[in-house]
Amino acid sequence: MPVRFGLLGAGRIGQVHATAISAVRGARLGALAEPVAEVAARMADEYGCDLRSIDEIASSDDIDAVIICTPTDTHADLIEQFCRAGKAVFCEKPIDLDITRVRACLDVVNETGGTLMLGFQRRFDPDFNALKQAIDAGKIGKVEMVTLTSRDPGPPPYAYIERSGGIFRDMMIHDFDVARWLLGEEVETVQAAASVLVDPEIGRLGDFDSANVILTTASGRQCTITNSRRATYGYDQRIEVHGSAGAVAAENTHAARIELADSTGYLRPPLQDFFMTRYQSAYAAEIAAFVACLADGTPPPTTGEDGLQALALAEAALLSVAEGRRISLSEIL
Amino acid sequence: MPVRFGLLGAGRIGQVHATAISAVRGARLGALAEPVAEVAARMADEYGCDLRSIDEIASSDDIDAVIICTPTDTHADLIEQFCRAGKAVFCEKPIDLDITRVRACLDVVNETGGTLMLGFQRRFDPDFNALKQAIDAGKIGKVEMVTLTSRDPGPPPYAYIERSGGIFRDMMIHDFDVARWLLGEEVETVQAAASVLVDPEIGRLGDFDSANVILTTASGRQCTITNSRRATYGYDQRIEVHGSAGAVAAENTHAARIELADSTGYLRPPLQDFFMTRYQSAYAAEIAAFVACLADGTPPPTTGEDGLQALALAEAALLSVAEGRRISLSEIL
Amino acid sequence: MPVRFGLLGAGRIGQVHATAISAVRGARLGALAEPVAEVAARMADEYGCDLRSIDEIASSDDIDAVIICTPTDTHADLIEQFCRAGKAVFCEKPIDLDITRVRACLDVVNETGGTLMLGFQRRFDPDFNALKQAIDAGKIGKVEMVTLTSRDPGPPPYAYIERSGGIFRDMMIHDFDVARWLLGEEVETVQAAASVLVDPEIGRLGDFDSANVILTTASGRQCTITNSRRATYGYDQRIEVHGSAGAVAAENTHAARIELADSTGYLRPPLQDFFMTRYQSAYAAEIAAFVACLADGTPPPTTGEDGLQALALAEAALLSVAEGRRISLSEIL
Amino acid sequence: MPVRFGLLGAGRIGQVHATAISAVRGARLGALAEPVAEVAARMADEYGCDLRSIDEIASSDDIDAVIICTPTDTHADLIEQFCRAGKAVFCEKPIDLDITRVRACLDVVNETGGTLMLGFQRRFDPDFNALKQAIDAGKIGKVEMVTLTSRDPGPPPYAYIERSGGIFRDMMIHDFDVARWLLGEEVETVQAAASVLVDPEIGRLGDFDSANVILTTASGRQCTITNSRRATYGYDQRIEVHGSAGAVAAENTHAARIELADSTGYLRPPLQDFFMTRYQSAYAAEIAAFVACLADGTPPPTTGEDGLQALALAEAALLSVAEGRRISLSEIL
Repeated sequence: MPVRFGLLGAGRIGQVHATAISAVRGARLGALAEPVAEVAARMADEYGCDLRSIDEIASSDDIDAVIICTPTDTHADLIEQFCRAGKAVFCEKPIDLDITRVRACLDVVNETGGTLMLGFQRRFDPDFNALKQAIDAGKIGKVEMVTLTSRDPGPPPYAYIERSGGIFRDMMIHDFDVARWLLGEEVETVQAAASVLVDPEIGRLGDFDSANVILTTASGRQCTITNSRRATYGYDQRIEVHGSAGAVAAENTHAARIELADSTGYLRPPLQDFFMTRYQSAYAAEIAAFVACLADGTPPPTTGEDGLQALALAEAALLSVAEGRRISLSEIL
Repeated sequence: MPVRFGLLGAGRIGQVHATAISAVRGARLGALAEPVAEVAARMADEYGCDLRSIDEIASSDDIDAVIICTPTDTHADLIEQFCRAGKAVFCEKPIDLDITRVRACLDVVNETGGTLMLGFQRRFDPDFNALKQAIDAGKIGKVEMVTLTSRDPGPPPYAYIERSGGIFRDMMIHDFDVARWLLGEEVETVQAAASVLVDPEIGRLGDFDSANVILTTASGRQCTITNSRRATYGYDQRIEVHGSAGAVAAENTHAARIELADSTGYLRPPLQDFFMTRYQSAYAAEIAAFVACLADGTPPPTTGEDGLQALALAEAALLSVAEGRRISLSEIL
Repeated sequence: MPVRFGLLGAGRIGQVHATAISAVRGARLGALAEPVAEVAARMADEYGCDLRSIDEIASSDDIDAVIICTPTDTHADLIEQFCRAGKAVFCEKPIDLDITRVRACLDVVNETGGTLMLGFQRRFDPDFNALKQAIDAGKIGKVEMVTLTSRDPGPPPYAYIERSGGIFRDMMIHDFDVARWLLGEEVETVQAAASVLVDPEIGRLGDFDSANVILTTASGRQCTITNSRRATYGYDQRIEVHGSAGAVAAENTHAARIELADSTGYLRPPLQDFFMTRYQSAYAAEIAAFVACLADGTPPPTTGEDGLQALALAEAALLSVAEGRRISLSEIL
Repeated sequence: MPVRFGLLGAGRIGQVHATAISAVRGARLGALAEPVAEVAARMADEYGCDLRSIDEIASSDDIDAVIICTPTDTHADLIEQFCRAGKAVFCEKPIDLDITRVRACLDVVNETGGTLMLGFQRRFDPDFNALKQAIDAGKIGKVEMVTLTSRDPGPPPYAYIERSGGIFRDMMIHDFDVARWLLGEEVETVQAAASVLVDPEIGRLGDFDSANVILTTASGRQCTITNSRRATYGYDQRIEVHGSAGAVAAENTHAARIELADSTGYLRPPLQDFFMTRYQSAYAAEIAAFVACLADGTPPPTTGEDGLQALALAEAALLSVAEGRRISLSEIL
């Protein structure tokens, strides 16, 4: 029998997950809770699912699992509500912007024995997976240095920046998770630099738009992360891992695999410029992995603890910028 | 109202089209005719469609269009039957291996005023489309030379080779169609060379496994096509077009976008090695294009005439190999 | 003791060879014959060599070898004169545009026991050599298909075209030599197509500017050669060899190894656009190889026979264009 | 009249410069001081120069300029001696490992009105120059972030590490200079991380073998530098600069421009694995630039002040590693 999903929130990312569910064998979208009536009606029609309130979904016998795509400040409460209701929970990152609240939420998950998977979709990208498999197969020997480059085509709306928790919690959080995934050891210290180079208004809102971070593990492995809120050439997403026996890199994804040659040179198209296009197959693979772990009774590949750790790295980076020193993760957690 | 499809034949390519239909908005798989009961039952279950005989589908009021994926020697008869039944027809290439039979069939299509689209999926590949758009946008000036490279990972089964009509009619037929699409002028002459380099048994079956062809148009534009039935590095599919103001090339598709560096060098994965993986998005776009032309009442982008022309080029190539001379297409058509 | 060279002709290619001699250990430019007094004086000053007449060089005891860079119609006579004078001879291709004259010249070379090396510099290009070594090391198994692409940035002056013997004898001659070098078997048949697409005046002069050729060996190995007198993107020089176990390709050389990314895409510079820049290291390696074979008493790597064979392939290609048929090399030689 | 050079020291780098001098028009190697008699004799023979003592060169009327390639601890004294002797001085980096000594030396250079050029050859690499020109031409808008990657094929001998001043002063010094060249603003703060991952003995000698640094300028521009003493894939030398309107990157240099494809994938050769091969044309261009500035009376492109600034960045990085904090360059200089 397929896993019957309830979808909480049908905004941009909610629609991505609805599509993903319909592409995964063994998954079915059963019910949707969405406050915007017009969107709700269209989605119900397109996916053939019921419209219910969040509370109705929590008490629905015909729903096995929920995908939480509501605003960030509702995540922790909903995780707790649905774990208590005995539903498996997939939640978009972050659980909360406050570490104490995250800890409390994870306590409830543990107490209820609930299943919680966090939405770090990059781990499910086919190219990044191929890179990880090469590392795990020993192709580069022992991991020594990880280099992550993430640049967005342009900054998000000011309204988003005001509530997002800033570039480290909102954008670099994905890189922190990828760093932990690839380093093979927990991070011990964080050094960070951040500037406002793209738009002064971002600075007035208390955030940065350009940042570099160095992470170091106990054995001395290092990871650098470069973030910018602007890249004229598209959505720049690269991973490079250097090890004792070699290195492996995941390349960017261009809008098309063509090259035009003329007197100005050889031109390939810009990068895919939207995270949903770039990570389309990653989102589908992520839901498939969630369904598989529900079917097998295995733990989810990305847990609440992963969310907590990535958030702690973001906190440490902020503190490093503020105090101009190397921050031990033990100061945060 | 969506276009309701009947699918004739649920073999390998039939299943590709069933998946494509389910991915296209405005298309629905209504009925399936498939002689292998087990396959038929599984498909009916998976796609929620009825099982009917071919004749039943021809007379079904709730079917608007059919996709013909049956063996080649049934194509012409089925096209005629369904055109007469007033159904729009999408047929996998070729219509028939015999040009006279193809002509007769196209006469029926014309008499009945039927709609026939031929399955040349490469024209719908996103990368090849981006290349075509660059040409149409004048980015390379006037087209002068087209270079097509198609190599299969390995030869098909002997049984297939015996009935396929040979490398020119079965494999290079796709390149002939792409050549016509890109040259911007009809081909006038054909020069061909063919050898048996991969497997002597292919020669004993009367076929070749390695071939090169030069096509020339009236104004002197030239196209070279290289085919091989073997490529250890995957499914090699490249297009390069040189013009008066520049050139544009479509690159191969690797199994993953990663690169591994060690003391032996920098290694990217082999190419995707199966035509259905390589052209997955092309097949979906092809069905979407068919649906769109039915919705708009516009002619299909790839017609029976395209099938006839490509087949004539294959005939001319065979004749050139046999007689060692430049063949005018007017000798064939 | 170094090899003491006499240089006959200090035009464009003569100057290339003078530079090459000065870069090769064990070689010294001793004397120069050049009719343009100003050029002669400047060269003598720059390289510290004597100015002598051709006849004086032929009878000079302090000259071991000559490099013939005079006009094509003097090559055969000079080869004969210097072989008879007991000097080792390096001659720029071609020996002559007429095959009968070439044969007569080679007879003299043989009778005198002279040493003659022909200037096919591509065989000495470091990248092409690395490709050849990969083939010889068995990396691609048995050679099956060779694909050669040569496009010049622009056509030569009309005056040159009038005397050059045409695109096959002047330009594709280099590809014919490379094809023979890489195929590992002598060519048996030639099929050719040629057009005037770049400049109608080239056609009025009796030449073509765009050509494709298919060569086939006895065992069925095939080579395609693509030539154009125009390429807006630079000097396009590519080799690709496909074999039973893999393939190897030599890439083009860009003006710089940088890539610029902006909203229009990812741009690499055009190709190096001049044959002397592109093949600078090849020219030096070529002279070094000549010096080495003189020192070791081994035969030159590119002989008069290589020049004859390449010229015969050009003749066959011309005949194929004219008569529209596959030409056996045995019809020419 | 050509610039007549005296070469002080004919070790590895001295020989590189001797070759460079002989390749530069307007430069001539007049005299050599080298303590190893055998090396001295061979060089004198090969380059046709005199053998003299350092003091003799200092007082030679026929010597215009010297190239100092002696051990590091002699650099400052020799710079002073030759500036006082009225010779133009080209000195390999560093002037000294001690900043106070460097300052004192530069005072002497200023007092004497001498000409001093420091050997930062990367600024003269053709590819890096093309990148710099793209930036200067405004192709990427305002520079925001610089990413430098430098990895050596393997660590130097222990004896070298003991005297080199460590990874920041010996290896990353080149990246510090490139960073200053590309950032377009002076660096204000330095954050550094360093580990021993390659060889524990390097740690016992008090050095590191793996390091990452973040530099920040007053306006918030950032530069990350990644160094490793080991790279199985060759000499990894990459630059990437991201700006407000685009980005530009300089790619690595492979041993050959070929690609081999087989069932394991597409393989390009490893990188050139020796700094003298990789930067061969940079060394020649560097000497040509020195000769040009002597001829024109313009200041050298890389000055003693550049050497001082790069050394100060190395000091700051070391201090940051030791104290775990962001170091202001004003603490060092």
